[in-house]
Amino acid sequence: MTIRTVVWGENIHERENAVVRGIYPDGMHATIAAALNTESEIEATTATLQEPEHGLSEARLADTDVLVWWGHKAHGDVSDEIVERVASRVWEGMGLLVLHSGHFAKPFKRLMGTPCALKWREAGERERIWTVNPGHPIAAGIPENFVLENEEMYGEFFSVPEPLETVFISWFAGGEIFRSGLTWRRGAGNIFYFRPGHETYPTYHDATVQQVLRNGVKWAYNPMPRYSAVHDAPNVPVEQALEPITERGPRLHQAGEEGYK
Amino acid sequence: MTIRTVVWGENIHERENAVVRGIYPDGMHATIAAALNTESEIEATTATLQEPEHGLSEARLADTDVLVWWGHKAHGDVSDEIVERVASRVWEGMGLLVLHSGHFAKPFKRLMGTPCALKWREAGERERIWTVNPGHPIAAGIPENFVLENEEMYGEFFSVPEPLETVFISWFAGGEIFRSGLTWRRGAGNIFYFRPGHETYPTYHDATVQQVLRNGVKWAYNPMPRYSAVHDAPNVPVEQALEPITERGPRLHQAGEEGYK
Amino acid sequence: MTIRTVVWGENIHERENAVVRGIYPDGMHATIAAALNTESEIEATTATLQEPEHGLSEARLADTDVLVWWGHKAHGDVSDEIVERVASRVWEGMGLLVLHSGHFAKPFKRLMGTPCALKWREAGERERIWTVNPGHPIAAGIPENFVLENEEMYGEFFSVPEPLETVFISWFAGGEIFRSGLTWRRGAGNIFYFRPGHETYPTYHDATVQQVLRNGVKWAYNPMPRYSAVHDAPNVPVEQALEPITERGPRLHQAGEEGYK
Amino acid sequence: MTIRTVVWGENIHERENAVVRGIYPDGMHATIAAALNTESEIEATTATLQEPEHGLSEARLADTDVLVWWGHKAHGDVSDEIVERVASRVWEGMGLLVLHSGHFAKPFKRLMGTPCALKWREAGERERIWTVNPGHPIAAGIPENFVLENEEMYGEFFSVPEPLETVFISWFAGGEIFRSGLTWRRGAGNIFYFRPGHETYPTYHDATVQQVLRNGVKWAYNPMPRYSAVHDAPNVPVEQALEPITERGPRLHQAGEEGYK
Repeated sequence: MTIRTVVWGENIHERENAVVRGIYPDGMHATIAAALNTESEIEATTATLQEPEHGLSEARLADTDVLVWWGHKAHGDVSDEIVERVASRVWEGMGLLVLHSGHFAKPFKRLMGTPCALKWREAGERERIWTVNPGHPIAAGIPENFVLENEEMYGEFFSVPEPLETVFISWFAGGEIFRSGLTWRRGAGNIFYFRPGHETYPTYHDATVQQVLRNGVKWAYNPMPRYSAVHDAPNVPVEQALEPITERGPRLHQAGEEGYK
Repeated sequence: MTIRTVVWGENIHERENAVVRGIYPDGMHATIAAALNTESEIEATTATLQEPEHGLSEARLADTDVLVWWGHKAHGDVSDEIVERVASRVWEGMGLLVLHSGHFAKPFKRLMGTPCALKWREAGERERIWTVNPGHPIAAGIPENFVLENEEMYGEFFSVPEPLETVFISWFAGGEIFRSGLTWRRGAGNIFYFRPGHETYPTYHDATVQQVLRNGVKWAYNPMPRYSAVHDAPNVPVEQALEPITERGPRLHQAGEEGYK
Repeated sequence: MTIRTVVWGENIHERENAVVRGIYPDGMHATIAAALNTESEIEATTATLQEPEHGLSEARLADTDVLVWWGHKAHGDVSDEIVERVASRVWEGMGLLVLHSGHFAKPFKRLMGTPCALKWREAGERERIWTVNPGHPIAAGIPENFVLENEEMYGEFFSVPEPLETVFISWFAGGEIFRSGLTWRRGAGNIFYFRPGHETYPTYHDATVQQVLRNGVKWAYNPMPRYSAVHDAPNVPVEQALEPITERGPRLHQAGEEGYK
Repeated sequence: MTIRTVVWGENIHERENAVVRGIYPDGMHATIAAALNTESEIEATTATLQEPEHGLSEARLADTDVLVWWGHKAHGDVSDEIVERVASRVWEGMGLLVLHSGHFAKPFKRLMGTPCALKWREAGERERIWTVNPGHPIAAGIPENFVLENEEMYGEFFSVPEPLETVFISWFAGGEIFRSGLTWRRGAGNIFYFRPGHETYPTYHDATVQQVLRNGVKWAYNPMPRYSAVHDAPNVPVEQALEPITERGPRLHQAGEEGYK
């Protein structure tokens, strides 16, 4: 089994900002992909905003089991066509990890159906992340709490749908808490949001954060064949009904007609 | 307490199809609104696709506590601007009841973030609806099961997010089942999907269906003030932190800067 | 509408400990009941461990819409018969609010089916409670966060089932977080766990805490008739099947026989 | 990886009833275990009511990753001590599959905290099971629906807690529906209830049912180390607080004292 994973990076701060470049000289996506590739079951490559089709062609996504998304400054530059393509692949079974400022990424907002807003403060304060679901696969090997000494604060209310499960909750030195690890299923696709990862701090070099990412990819992976039927709304003709029935009453549609969409 | 309710009708089949007109001479929306108005706490009016802004102006929605939506043939004619407006009001606390073929209505798909597809068959077959959550407010006074002698079949997989709770499940004579009563919360807004209501059958004249609709409106009603903060993503400056903290490390944003959206 | 509410108090610390008696001279249950009674819809009385049947006779519970439970030192003294009686009434539709150290109360553990354990520290530290579900009825009128200057710390992992919804999460000065407001439905009964309320601090005199309690009682209230059917496992004879079927194959049970329990 | 699985069988009907013995000459547990063992990752053995400690000694359970439970006639003969032992191991991470009439098994009721009751009819009627969560691991390779030509009917209301996810729903020829595949997590343990399996029909010889069981075992398997901490409620002394705090206010407990349980 190999989990074909694409780490998508906006790839702007790393080039424009010396601090970020200093921490992630090859880009945040490269650091994340390298961390994932330490797991033998994961085969991670990268894609960036600047590539044709943002590096997410139909062919590429067809061969992607899990997509990891980090974006911040240029959410608006992501093409709506690619957003629909990503959402569609998630419904078909592709896993999706959304990181940090990706809470406002178009594909995430598209899949959540909510604003996905939150409070924030960039002060390099201490974040302590607590495991509140120690039996969840994403928590495997993660201690009951761990510290990121410098992180951006995110505060509630985080306007996402009630998750399937809450895995992590953050404590911030400035007094806030935040639901930092949340899961959802949409169609046949598993989605995991993980909070940490502000670009001016070395978060993705942290060993525990890297373990959470590997766990997240493995959890999000759906080994089933592409679930293309998710796009269909088939008519089941009376003569093919599973139990014999007789058509009764008036009808609107002609035989063989497609439904309205 | 008065629950200001707007019943939105596509209002096409009733005018174009003699069968539908015979069942709902004043429109399906009128029948539904009348059924709601038998409850003293509910004050229901109607709006239709053909009105300016589909009858859903900012001012109208601002005064709406619960919106009930029935559409089928003309989902594509609903303006995207109105769709965003409706979704926005739901996040702020407006309740939303989505009926039958409204599973493909743009506001519902927008709020679910999934295809919302299903199987279907128009054969006037028997539907038996089972209450699987008898303590839920929407099930108040509803028997353990009730029959609609002629209905369109909807079959699984219904590609919506796992609901907060499942209230009703349908049995169909042709062999299918369907999760017919599902709830979600999105932002501060409560959403209830209720399956029955094909336009060529007298479903909305059924007393039990009408009771479910009244229960649904009362459940979806959120009496709190409009939750406008759902649209904000405020910066919390260091000097206003709840606990005293000192800014540390490099930062990306300038003081007073807005975040990226 | 009147919500007949019983506030159950263990009533030991108030009598044995001068500090607690100083804060709650009439007992914690009396303070809580008085806070509830400021809401016209609620009619709260009290019951204590020391009364016959702990004040929770069949007759009393039959007339109780919502039960509020505070216990700590004497969980083991609560009779198993009363525990079963309380659980049974919850399944039938009685609401249940479990407060603070009640996480280890027998009726709560019985209804959760899990250990309900947590970490703790009694240091009078600051607790800041965040609303993470601002549209939930229990959060009505509650600010986005509020402070209890002196409270006992409770820390995760709180071993309860994943809740229906998470309403509040606490931040503690000592570095912990805790899911402080959680909801479940069991049978026809609504259950709300609310964390604050250590006996050596004046928590139940806090205006915001009192508002949460009133909201909790109103949310937990199920106005439907007592759902006694929850105890039944009825046989549905072939000749009473909703759809005509013919008995086929061998069978284990004789006609009219009860099932195994 | 090997998933050490124990199939527990009540083992009474197979010995007392000729019909059941004819279908399952070596016992239902043996047939189920054999079906599981066709999967190379699973190593299934059996245990029965009649063995010492019902075959579920502490040592045996310590070496069990997933327990499968079938019981019916003799639920009351299962020792309460063993019930607590099983529940405890589930909280620590052992998976649990509960089959058919096991809905009334003591360990299941213990873990659910609800009556787990349902309607029933033994008429050998047709059951059609629908997959309503096609992306769930338990649905891997399972068609959108499959038929068991002769089964006992189970009808709603099935008084269990709202599940984490609903995977299967059954249609019965006699007019009922039933939530037939439900999942929960309790502590670190995954629980799956699967409805079919009346002893007088050859259900566990059905290839699709066997696939569901194998999927269920693989889904329920938690590879993490035994989560013994689930039983603890540790005091965290002030001097060991993660953030420096000073003890304030009165306290109830002495230093080093255990909390009340």
